[in-house]
Amino acid sequence: MHNIKVGVIQMSVSDDKETNLKKAQSMIRKACQQGAQMVVLPEVFNSPYQINLFPDYAEPYPGPTTRLLSRLAAEQEILLVGGSIIEKDTNGKLYNSSFVFDEKGQLLGRHRKMHLFDINLPGKVVFRESDILESGNNITIIQHQGLCLGLMICYDFRFPELARAAVLEGAQLLVVPAAFTAATGEAHWDLLMRSRAVDNQCFVIAVSPARNPQSSYQAWGHSMIVDPWGRIIAEAGETESIIYARLDFKQLEEIRQQLPLLQHRRHDLYHLNYGRLMK
Amino acid sequence: MHNIKVGVIQMSVSDDKETNLKKAQSMIRKACQQGAQMVVLPEVFNSPYQINLFPDYAEPYPGPTTRLLSRLAAEQEILLVGGSIIEKDTNGKLYNSSFVFDEKGQLLGRHRKMHLFDINLPGKVVFRESDILESGNNITIIQHQGLCLGLMICYDFRFPELARAAVLEGAQLLVVPAAFTAATGEAHWDLLMRSRAVDNQCFVIAVSPARNPQSSYQAWGHSMIVDPWGRIIAEAGETESIIYARLDFKQLEEIRQQLPLLQHRRHDLYHLNYGRLMK
Repeated sequence: MHNIKVGVIQMSVSDDKETNLKKAQSMIRKACQQGAQMVVLPEVFNSPYQINLFPDYAEPYPGPTTRLLSRLAAEQEILLVGGSIIEKDTNGKLYNSSFVFDEKGQLLGRHRKMHLFDINLPGKVVFRESDILESGNNITIIQHQGLCLGLMICYDFRFPELARAAVLEGAQLLVVPAAFTAATGEAHWDLLMRSRAVDNQCFVIAVSPARNPQSSYQAWGHSMIVDPWGRIIAEAGETESIIYARLDFKQLEEIRQQLPLLQHRRHDLYHLNYGRLMK
Repeated sequence: MHNIKVGVIQMSVSDDKETNLKKAQSMIRKACQQGAQMVVLPEVFNSPYQINLFPDYAEPYPGPTTRLLSRLAAEQEILLVGGSIIEKDTNGKLYNSSFVFDEKGQLLGRHRKMHLFDINLPGKVVFRESDILESGNNITIIQHQGLCLGLMICYDFRFPELARAAVLEGAQLLVVPAAFTAATGEAHWDLLMRSRAVDNQCFVIAVSPARNPQSSYQAWGHSMIVDPWGRIIAEAGETESIIYARLDFKQLEEIRQQLPLLQHRRHDLYHLNYGRLMK
């Protein structure tokens, strides 16, 4: 695959699941009208980002949300990265999970958030996902028709090891549904998205919900697509919108040739081991 | 150690070694008059940054430059990170090496650049250090009076594994003498310095030579000191100057407590191995 047009859905998320699903559906269809071949939704797009409400919005796989995503992927013949939802496992455990569907609506893979967001910034944000959620235990790579992507959810992206492992496994792009807080977003969002792209010479697609003044949780917004030289090639503001870019994988190859960072790694002196890969 | 005042010498480097050494001496003394307890020089501060000239400027250890650095460290009673020089080993091989001296003028450690800069950006910069230099084979950590620093030279810093290894070994700050080109500096300098600080929750001190319009090699300048939240707390322009900051290690502990990234690493699922540590 030489290039692909990507549509990134920075949707506003309400506390009504039905409304959220309808919104996702109409925005996906709109992105496809603009020629998007791959569409990405934000983290927890069918539920408010409130930990205490997660059990009420959780669903099993397959469930209403993933069935809709599968149907839309097939209907529009796209690669659909379904942001994330709160997934209820058969044993009743809850995960923050991203489901990916191909052009026929078939499930290509699932990533369960591996790093749970427990933070204590006094006066700014206190958050403990681990009170409610279980963490996933797999690094997730999706391979499809010559495209290879590494899938991470929000806080996962704070850990450079994960992006590195994905790229060493062949990822040309890293896809990150993420609802950063306004405080950490302002401090670190651009920096993380751009630096992972530069260090790993890959594309990065970061997808946030829109800022919602009615919500107790203010997502940062600023969904963006970054090229392998660290340039932001598309960026949303804080409100609801769709951004687009055509990812050109020849550009990626050129950059890796001119500045061969991945080849110059001293794997004789340091080595990243990682075990459980889900491909 | 709770805090330390650092002076960063963004000196202009000429093609006359004697002039460069005098300049380094006078700027180190000036920084100490301002209360600096630790002083850092830039990469290849006693020679022009021209690969074909490196053999002419190379010296053994001990040699004229390192003897001067030792004397100055003792005279001013400071921790002195001697940027880097081209070191000629007893077997005649050349390295890009950083020597560190304590308050008594004793050698605390030496880092030899591990990653050689071979780049081919057509029309912008073509550079092949590996034509002339050997690469070092040790990750370098300096421990002194409760301070622990990771030492890297320029291109070394492109590799997130190295910074991570240093911090896992206890580094509170990463010190990086570095002469980025104007092209890569503009694209990536701030980004790399800030993102390593944020990912590893440590201070970063990056020291460039001043931009020299007479030179065939235009260093980026913009020496900077970055705090563990990724904020630039001191920054030079392009011309010769000294910048200062007091590093407060209580701030570092606070940030690591509030957002415990290093603890949240999933070392059960990925693990960075590194062998040859020089402490």
